[in-house]
Amino acid sequence: MASEALPLISSSAGPLLARAARNMSQSTLREVFGLVAATPGTINLAVGLPAEDLFPTEELAEVAARLLATDRRSLQYGIPYQPLKAQVVELMARRGVTCREQQVFLTSGSQQGMDLLAHLFLEPGGTALFERVVYDGIQMAVKKLEPRLLLVPTDIHDGIDVDAVEEVLEDGAAPAFLYVITDGHNPLGVSIAPRNRPRLVELARRHRMPVLEDDAYGFLYCEDSPAPPLRALDEDWVCYLGTFSKLLAPGLRTGWVVVPEELVAPLAALKHAADLDTPSFSHRLISAFIDTGALPAHLARVRAEYRRRRDAMLAALDRHLAGQAHWNRPTAGMFVWVELPPGADTFQLVRTAISEERVAFSPGDAFAAGGSHARHCLRLAFANHSPEQIEEGVARLARAVARAVS
Amino acid sequence: MASEALPLISSSAGPLLARAARNMSQSTLREVFGLVAATPGTINLAVGLPAEDLFPTEELAEVAARLLATDRRSLQYGIPYQPLKAQVVELMARRGVTCREQQVFLTSGSQQGMDLLAHLFLEPGGTALFERVVYDGIQMAVKKLEPRLLLVPTDIHDGIDVDAVEEVLEDGAAPAFLYVITDGHNPLGVSIAPRNRPRLVELARRHRMPVLEDDAYGFLYCEDSPAPPLRALDEDWVCYLGTFSKLLAPGLRTGWVVVPEELVAPLAALKHAADLDTPSFSHRLISAFIDTGALPAHLARVRAEYRRRRDAMLAALDRHLAGQAHWNRPTAGMFVWVELPPGADTFQLVRTAISEERVAFSPGDAFAAGGSHARHCLRLAFANHSPEQIEEGVARLARAVARAVS
Repeated sequence: MASEALPLISSSAGPLLARAARNMSQSTLREVFGLVAATPGTINLAVGLPAEDLFPTEELAEVAARLLATDRRSLQYGIPYQPLKAQVVELMARRGVTCREQQVFLTSGSQQGMDLLAHLFLEPGGTALFERVVYDGIQMAVKKLEPRLLLVPTDIHDGIDVDAVEEVLEDGAAPAFLYVITDGHNPLGVSIAPRNRPRLVELARRHRMPVLEDDAYGFLYCEDSPAPPLRALDEDWVCYLGTFSKLLAPGLRTGWVVVPEELVAPLAALKHAADLDTPSFSHRLISAFIDTGALPAHLARVRAEYRRRRDAMLAALDRHLAGQAHWNRPTAGMFVWVELPPGADTFQLVRTAISEERVAFSPGDAFAAGGSHARHCLRLAFANHSPEQIEEGVARLARAVARAVS
Repeated sequence: MASEALPLISSSAGPLLARAARNMSQSTLREVFGLVAATPGTINLAVGLPAEDLFPTEELAEVAARLLATDRRSLQYGIPYQPLKAQVVELMARRGVTCREQQVFLTSGSQQGMDLLAHLFLEPGGTALFERVVYDGIQMAVKKLEPRLLLVPTDIHDGIDVDAVEEVLEDGAAPAFLYVITDGHNPLGVSIAPRNRPRLVELARRHRMPVLEDDAYGFLYCEDSPAPPLRALDEDWVCYLGTFSKLLAPGLRTGWVVVPEELVAPLAALKHAADLDTPSFSHRLISAFIDTGALPAHLARVRAEYRRRRDAMLAALDRHLAGQAHWNRPTAGMFVWVELPPGADTFQLVRTAISEERVAFSPGDAFAAGGSHARHCLRLAFANHSPEQIEEGVARLARAVARAVS
């Protein structure tokens, strides 16, 4: 995330902006998207798009036509769509989580879940506990509240450093919440080691610390079905965030949270203030799609294809960057995290990679909370590209790296 | 809006909530909706739903099928859809407003525009200028920021009391913004007298005060096309809010704001933090619908039908409540504001009206900023009912009023 504040709009020119709004700024990633858009032919490994070619457009078109012909309420204001909540409960069961409809709250995508939960728990100027390298969306969500961030390291193979979490909490810090991605971490690709999950939950309970568990990628596993998420181990302190953006399509902007039942009413009040209503049409469209029974086969197809694309990326990295960089092997999600030698500057590299080699990636510092400690790292997204594009993209990346070193 | 805070969730039971989140609560209107849902056969004049029977479902189904067959990006993450911005510019021209695409920012409905603009201008604990009777959505939007509210009266025939606005500003108050609905005020039904519009804009300029102009109803006029909105008179201090919820369908959750160009980037950063992305599918669906050329005829049909329904409501009020109440004659929008004699308690009345007469309305205090000064008033919504339902609903209301008085 770029740390530059927007220029202060002086009172002589126009309206004064609130301080927190002045301190918001577009993320580094949005800047990269702009460069990519201006450079035709760029292979864009920067952005975490789900596979467009796998969207079940035909089934959705049928469902949409039927919905519009039979249910005018799909276009009306409405209360959250109860049948979709019941379907979420079933989905959660497939992740090993037992929950009730009364604990499910529907959101306009996962980002809204983060924003609402952040405002539910975090006082302005309060404290939140993050990994040092953390999804930029949660950084955006808390920024308005100008929090103090406590930061812990992440092991690239085992996930969040639970010893470090314990140390922070034992030292007496009382963060408003901890944010983690359990499987297929964005940007690190890593999943929390199964043996560490109960320990993390135990710490949350003992220290009465809510955990915001972002499970955007838990259904997108490349190998065996992963261990159940933290929410399977605790229903009082773990607030689970799920999203149809990765299961089905981001353009429908529908996600959910699973929270203790008494938090649903305050979340609803916060959401009412934010955007009044979740899209009725999207809710009913997704619900009707699930009703056709097509979701399991769709997910199986997505998983198989993501595995193929991940394998293509790992093979390409082996071919083109062995010895010059390190990376891990994600078992879920959409991302591979690559560490170049210390001293490399991926924030500069991305500019020349786009302009000279027509390949884009996400610079590590887009995810470095409160610092520039991931300047030598980069994130590659494999989900929305064919194996051939991935091979070509990584080859171009290797040329850009070689050029920067020489 | 209910003023009761949510019960404090004690630290012995579960997570601590942030103070602002504890102070959020569901609106009175949501409570009324709950009662209505539990009472089958109720004629619901409480809620401002656009006419469901007029949604152009066939055209939308055709457009949706074509879109899904030809444009997979309609389901993907994406930047705000530029063609829709161009179409908004054309729509604005029909309202007498000249603007550029660079001044248009797309939102998830008007409520999100209010929330983002409130956070753009208002410091926590800052000051905002409202009418004493004001749309509950803007009250919800600012609540998290715990502002001090400056309040001015509204004339039921001429709209906001511009003398009172001048007085507040001359007294040295420097509110972060003024919120107004120019035409078809929700809940008051009134439109700002054309002669007062330039004066209001002049005050905003002189006192460097942004105006949030909510024009949700400006396209829904029952009589002649109304005077242009405030934004037609000033592009530096007026931030205009528009919405497709009333023009087309709320279930698509798409609105827009027109603001000074330099405010678009900070709004985009705030929106990114709030929900990442506006629904690509809704954007492209609405844009494709407008491309068919069907919008003007649709709006003409909506206007003619709303006029018929308004007239039915005014005639029913004349028939059943003459001499017992006062009301005004809206020339735009969806609402009639009814004042019962002082001492009437519509907050109580709505309960018996639903349970005993099976008719619902919105109690005036749902819109009374910071007080109970509209306890004897109520809002009736006419847009989503046939003239026959309206006649029956108002007859039931009159019986409930008579019963309460006796």
